[in-house]
Amino acid sequence: MPALTPYEQLEQEFRRLHAFRGTLALLRWDAAVTMPRASADLRGDQLAAIETECHALLTSPRLTRLLERAEANKQGLRDWQLANLREMRRERDHAIGMPPSLVSRLARAVARAEAMWREARDRNDFTVLAPHLEEVVKLTRNRAESLGQHLGLDPYDALADEFTPGLRSREITEMFATLSQRLPTLVGEALERQESRPVLGISGRFPASKQRALCVDVMKALGFPFDRGRFDEADRPFTESVPGDTRVTTRFDPGDPFAGLLGALHETGHALYDLGLPVEWRDQPVGQDRGMALEQSQSLLLEMIVGRSRPFVAYLRPLLEKHYSATGPEWSDDNVYRRLTTVTRGPIRVDADELTYQAHVVVRYELEQQLLSGELPVRDLPAAWNDLMDRRLGVCPASDNDGCLQDGHWALGSFGYFPSYGIGAVIAAQLWETLRESLEGVDEQVARGEFGPLLGWLRDNVHSVGAKLDVPGLVGHATGKPLSASSYLRYLERKYLSEW
Amino acid sequence: MPALTPYEQLEQEFRRLHAFRGTLALLRWDAAVTMPRASADLRGDQLAAIETECHALLTSPRLTRLLERAEANKQGLRDWQLANLREMRRERDHAIGMPPSLVSRLARAVARAEAMWREARDRNDFTVLAPHLEEVVKLTRNRAESLGQHLGLDPYDALADEFTPGLRSREITEMFATLSQRLPTLVGEALERQESRPVLGISGRFPASKQRALCVDVMKALGFPFDRGRFDEADRPFTESVPGDTRVTTRFDPGDPFAGLLGALHETGHALYDLGLPVEWRDQPVGQDRGMALEQSQSLLLEMIVGRSRPFVAYLRPLLEKHYSATGPEWSDDNVYRRLTTVTRGPIRVDADELTYQAHVVVRYELEQQLLSGELPVRDLPAAWNDLMDRRLGVCPASDNDGCLQDGHWALGSFGYFPSYGIGAVIAAQLWETLRESLEGVDEQVARGEFGPLLGWLRDNVHSVGAKLDVPGLVGHATGKPLSASSYLRYLERKYLSEW
Repeated sequence: MPALTPYEQLEQEFRRLHAFRGTLALLRWDAAVTMPRASADLRGDQLAAIETECHALLTSPRLTRLLERAEANKQGLRDWQLANLREMRRERDHAIGMPPSLVSRLARAVARAEAMWREARDRNDFTVLAPHLEEVVKLTRNRAESLGQHLGLDPYDALADEFTPGLRSREITEMFATLSQRLPTLVGEALERQESRPVLGISGRFPASKQRALCVDVMKALGFPFDRGRFDEADRPFTESVPGDTRVTTRFDPGDPFAGLLGALHETGHALYDLGLPVEWRDQPVGQDRGMALEQSQSLLLEMIVGRSRPFVAYLRPLLEKHYSATGPEWSDDNVYRRLTTVTRGPIRVDADELTYQAHVVVRYELEQQLLSGELPVRDLPAAWNDLMDRRLGVCPASDNDGCLQDGHWALGSFGYFPSYGIGAVIAAQLWETLRESLEGVDEQVARGEFGPLLGWLRDNVHSVGAKLDVPGLVGHATGKPLSASSYLRYLERKYLSEW
Repeated sequence: MPALTPYEQLEQEFRRLHAFRGTLALLRWDAAVTMPRASADLRGDQLAAIETECHALLTSPRLTRLLERAEANKQGLRDWQLANLREMRRERDHAIGMPPSLVSRLARAVARAEAMWREARDRNDFTVLAPHLEEVVKLTRNRAESLGQHLGLDPYDALADEFTPGLRSREITEMFATLSQRLPTLVGEALERQESRPVLGISGRFPASKQRALCVDVMKALGFPFDRGRFDEADRPFTESVPGDTRVTTRFDPGDPFAGLLGALHETGHALYDLGLPVEWRDQPVGQDRGMALEQSQSLLLEMIVGRSRPFVAYLRPLLEKHYSATGPEWSDDNVYRRLTTVTRGPIRVDADELTYQAHVVVRYELEQQLLSGELPVRDLPAAWNDLMDRRLGVCPASDNDGCLQDGHWALGSFGYFPSYGIGAVIAAQLWETLRESLEGVDEQVARGEFGPLLGWLRDNVHSVGAKLDVPGLVGHATGKPLSASSYLRYLERKYLSEW
């Protein structure tokens, strides 16, 4: 057997990393779905042991040497291999940018802050969390600086790069500014139109077993492979996926016939993205998804754009009759569609509709930058939050729980993550516009439950690219245009002002 | 923080090993219970990656250095720590006794042989497996020799030491000779008595849901902690357990009201052993179970000795009425007890009753030694098997599937494992005899479903010892007598010749 080249040895190392990460995915899925309640401590130890192993692998001197040697001698490497080498370097630089002492201090601070966040929510009192969040912010600031130095990026960009690779805060700020200019009036106009179209309430009980059967029918039509995946109930919708084993959950509320389905649609969007990644690269960095913004674009495209459309409601009709025995005017296509697209100014992000959602994201984006820069002291967060929510959406949260205590991201040390929700929605609309131009009759297909062409387009133009391009590159590749908010605004205007 | 001593550093390393092994347990459990069918390849990669990590940890030069330094300076270590250090050394020596090149060659040979074993079973033809088994035998011989050199043991003893630590083949052979002297006539006498006591058949369908509810009632009475464990259906009964998360499965046959329950009892025996291990040592070698023979002693004690006893049948009666609406003469205590203790000379080990089981074990023990020594060529295995089954049990298998193809252990490279089944039964009887002497009224307690005192005795005298003593030491500690076959023969004689 001839000796392996440095590049080939790197592929071996990352294959090992991939196996560890698949194991982490199972440990997390099991913790949320099947693990006995009292076994959580144990699971923490297992996750920490494997995560430490992943970090050690990425930051080992051997890996760095192999990278340098492979980068110094690239001839003979194909396109995909060159992209893979770039992604290997990216993973290593992200990992090594975080000194081990900081890793463990941050892990401890986050564990404490998460517990205190729950406590603060129980008491509806931000001051309970404040000193612990302050510690997390301080350590995250150090982390962002160290990471920024290693990556040659501004501190905030270094954090955001994990979720939106290749996109910088200059571009994000510009995009959000465009949105903040148009959306408030758009929301106002939509609310006005909405007043003249009342929505009939839907009452009744919808047992989990019936909701599940409905979801399974829809997921089968979408091509979810039940022999290489699972669909379970959990206390929140999520997807844990390694290529070849994709597990989706949703949460069923017996009083709401649609929430479980929309959760399942959202997660099926993630799942189909993961399943469409290039199979031959499945155990290498270049074969992975292109980060959280792209993931969100796929889940939102299915949940928000397709799932809350008139053709999809037409497709759903016989299934609603089959599973919910749905008859009567409240189940008319018109009424169901109105229900799924109702706009409301509310204080809670996860309950927000498509149109008001961006305001929630923008508020968090602005505040997390101010927190990290030190411009906003942690103790002033509630007031700043409420003020900004009022300015951006015209909503004033009545309490800390309805305000800055609603999300756990910051207590968990996740900064730079929120923008990916908003950018994901923008990307979804841009993809959708291009897709509709190149796929004739997609509305009629969706109405008939034929999702093949739609998903085929996404697979060909988005999923199969893996991580070969960065976010702006991938969007450009798939749509022929630079990433911008214009498709998104056109989509919202048509949906909420013309067609609704 | 003062620097850690070598011993303390070792504890840290083995804590990491424990987390990896807990992860392996989950990977295996999930593969058998929840994993999507087509995801098996992926799982193989994940298991291999973590197993490789475990092996690397145990065989690292750093670990060896730490062991040497800790062994050279034992003062200040307490009893448990000294025992832990011995077990650490034992684990390391077992791991390092296997050269990495042999590990991977054996892994490949075993993967091929396992596939060919299934193929051979499909065709009921041993010659399909023979050449592949020959390769496994050859490599296992090398493994046994290398391991024997490292451990200072005969090759076969080096393999068996993994399953019955501290017991040598000289003692095993002697014990099995004692059994082989008495059991054949005992089987004959029991069969003769049995003829005068016909057993009424039990017909009907027993849906999995009812069998499961029965099992759950029994497991609750036994103290299985459903908040720190699970009970699921799988295609075979097994237990995957790390302290704090114990998962038991069984298989339900709708035509058989007892098989699923007996499987669950067997596995609950394993589970309660694991749950009774010393909590403060749960992430260290000394806190683990004392190997397969001891595990079997706990599962057989519950399934065979307690579960197939008159008091247990009396305890079951109201549960059989509750879950199976069991009425009629076929459900009388007498008839159910006879059903659970029927003796049959048959060719298949896993279908064998308590009395004929040892013959199956002895046949395999004799043959695997001859295979490893080279005395028996692999191609002659079927004839040797059938001949020995005839001599030891008076049964001549009609085909390879009923003969040497029935178990996969050898194709999977497991040599030295079979004796632990037989020794486990012997240990169970010796523990039972002592337990009955010190626990007054245990029969009446069992009949009332009060398992607390029985299990308390096992926890105090067996479970809580962990791996502090080797097998002969642990049996001596718990029973005050050296391990021997005499309690076992007394138990069988009373059960099958006097009381039955």
